[in-house]
Amino acid sequence: MSYARQILDTYPRTLDADDNLLAVAIDAISDCAQACQADTDADLSEQNLAEMVRCIRLCLDCTDICAAAGAVLSRLAEYDPAVTRPLLESCIAICHSCGEECERHAAHMEHCRICAEACRRCEQACRDLLETLK
Amino acid sequence: MSYARQILDTYPRTLDADDNLLAVAIDAISDCAQACQADTDADLSEQNLAEMVRCIRLCLDCTDICAAAGAVLSRLAEYDPAVTRPLLESCIAICHSCGEECERHAAHMEHCRICAEACRRCEQACRDLLETLK
Amino acid sequence: MSYARQILDTYPRTLDADDNLLAVAIDAISDCAQACQADTDADLSEQNLAEMVRCIRLCLDCTDICAAAGAVLSRLAEYDPAVTRPLLESCIAICHSCGEECERHAAHMEHCRICAEACRRCEQACRDLLETLK
Amino acid sequence: MSYARQILDTYPRTLDADDNLLAVAIDAISDCAQACQADTDADLSEQNLAEMVRCIRLCLDCTDICAAAGAVLSRLAEYDPAVTRPLLESCIAICHSCGEECERHAAHMEHCRICAEACRRCEQACRDLLETLK
Repeated sequence: MSYARQILDTYPRTLDADDNLLAVAIDAISDCAQACQADTDADLSEQNLAEMVRCIRLCLDCTDICAAAGAVLSRLAEYDPAVTRPLLESCIAICHSCGEECERHAAHMEHCRICAEACRRCEQACRDLLETLK
Repeated sequence: MSYARQILDTYPRTLDADDNLLAVAIDAISDCAQACQADTDADLSEQNLAEMVRCIRLCLDCTDICAAAGAVLSRLAEYDPAVTRPLLESCIAICHSCGEECERHAAHMEHCRICAEACRRCEQACRDLLETLK
Repeated sequence: MSYARQILDTYPRTLDADDNLLAVAIDAISDCAQACQADTDADLSEQNLAEMVRCIRLCLDCTDICAAAGAVLSRLAEYDPAVTRPLLESCIAICHSCGEECERHAAHMEHCRICAEACRRCEQACRDLLETLK
Repeated sequence: MSYARQILDTYPRTLDADDNLLAVAIDAISDCAQACQADTDADLSEQNLAEMVRCIRLCLDCTDICAAAGAVLSRLAEYDPAVTRPLLESCIAICHSCGEECERHAAHMEHCRICAEACRRCEQACRDLLETLK
């Protein structure tokens, strides 16, 4: 269990979500941000750069949106659905696009295969959480 | 005109938005992120901290969401409405809440008065841009 | 093993560091950034806010510096000691200060105890990595 | 004058620096982060991508380090030279490298010419500030 998850259990919150779904989402978002950051650099090391441009751009967007979503979900004590719900929707959309693009390269680029997995897991965790948020 | 705006004029993009609205939004988002970051620290210097907690939390969320929105809007060459639209909606919602909370303190805290102005300007710029995005 | 660590093993790099020390540092930095982000919000939920202000500020700095250090270390293919070394030194210094401050509250605040542990582990991992970097 | 600079004038701080040098540095850092973010995307739109890879990587590092430096400088009330000085040194080093690389492309890429200018201005502003910090 991550340090962040341990800390989140120690104080009150207004975000009324299933404990486990929330914790899984926070960790999946952090993992995905890291994976996309690393995949950006790995993509830049490839020979066929022109084919990787879309992947790089989606990874950059995914890194930044995951960073914001993770930060907002980690501040549990002031939950506003008008802020959090569209942010999760944006996160789901970029994880979906980025995961699909990485999947296209997965067969011949191990780093994209791993990043696709991180994106899909993050997309699913955010969907599961979003469904339970009122 | 900011360096970022000058750069954005030098290369092609898929985001089909009014040049001026886009540039205004990018600059307003950056200004708002900076203002909220500074206001967080100023709030923490106040005597009546208990009254400032909600303001601090909203400023932290506003900083992080503006950072993501500004980054995504600055990568113009790969526009996806499913990502950008909800991100702008989230940004509008947090700027609205943060601006209202800062406004409550504006009469006796100059830093909150300034931050409220930055939030309102950012909210409006994002609304104007969102309306023109298909 | 994190997705990021798996990806970092799949492509060449110029940063000539022990594989394991590097991987441990990247993961410890990410954990510490998340922990400090969560601890900031937990601190803001405490009754004795005045006593927590220094802790909140150090956690905010630690979050931001760890984010930069983690990002730079994840881009292995373009290593510049003039950039990376002082960035790690700054990261070590803030982890040390933040860890000490959290430690002061650890006996009666579980969230600060956990955050102190994350900071100390990150400080040590960055020290170990810095020693091996030429 | 930016909102952030206006806010910084409204509350006490421990960072004992010349007001103007500090304000200039904060604004130059923010401008540089934005410019590097935009230049990354512009670089990715170029035909000769292989020649731009180093520029992209340096812009990514510069964006992330400037973001951390700007955040730390904006929290004036808890200044620690052991944290801030090496962070500024790292920022100076990456602005120098990134500015030199952008300069190489400046003659035939307007976006790199503009980004080089933002990097040089930021490098100088950070040097000026660092000299005055005890």
